[in-house]
Amino acid sequence: MQKVFAMTAPTTFDASTLKFDAAGLIPCIAQEAETGEVLMMAWMNAAAVQKTLETGRVTYWSRSRQSFWIKGETSGHLQHLVDLRVDCDRDCLLAMVRQEGPACHTNRRSCFYTAIREGDEVELMAPMVP
Amino acid sequence: MQKVFAMTAPTTFDASTLKFDAAGLIPCIAQEAETGEVLMMAWMNAAAVQKTLETGRVTYWSRSRQSFWIKGETSGHLQHLVDLRVDCDRDCLLAMVRQEGPACHTNRRSCFYTAIREGDEVELMAPMVP
Repeated sequence: MQKVFAMTAPTTFDASTLKFDAAGLIPCIAQEAETGEVLMMAWMNAAAVQKTLETGRVTYWSRSRQSFWIKGETSGHLQHLVDLRVDCDRDCLLAMVRQEGPACHTNRRSCFYTAIREGDEVELMAPMVP
Repeated sequence: MQKVFAMTAPTTFDASTLKFDAAGLIPCIAQEAETGEVLMMAWMNAAAVQKTLETGRVTYWSRSRQSFWIKGETSGHLQHLVDLRVDCDRDCLLAMVRQEGPACHTNRRSCFYTAIREGDEVELMAPMVP
């Protein structure tokens, strides 16, 4: 379905017009579209941005593996793109997503599950039960 | 008030335990605590993290000016810290804030005012009227 969309209505947005860092990467924040919860932040290169737009599956660039990272491809915890936004400086992206299951590799809904309060680190949420 | 708090209950959290990039910086996402709106992303060094926790005013590190950047210090559009969160990899921060006025230097509420839809860039919000 997404592929057909991409074939019939090719995106004309040129990801190379974004501002990338020295490594050719741009940070992308993932936010659950329905609840507003910030889920994670990871990196994209220009090709990952294009793939994300064309496939509707949020695709990052893994700095450790130096390869595309289709979020949830192995875990099943896919991120379906709802809306992609770019900031005023064109050097940061915000992906509004529909997240299947936990976004965090620790099985928590969000990677931001630790708060710093009065000098202590406080755990805000437990891992999700499959 | 915040200063008194910092003096009587000094934070024991050690910001140097976070993971900083080669330039000694960590990205920090600012999210409006009440509405969940993602406002901006900027960078902090360890001292900026400590200042943010101690003063309750979100303080970034300006990469262009190479100096502390107390958000709103000149514009009056302060970010009051509500909760500071750290992600699973300890290499990204999420500041839940109460934002006075617009967060963006274009006078828009959020820096993420442009969406990429069907190949076009769409402006989602107008500058705020003072």
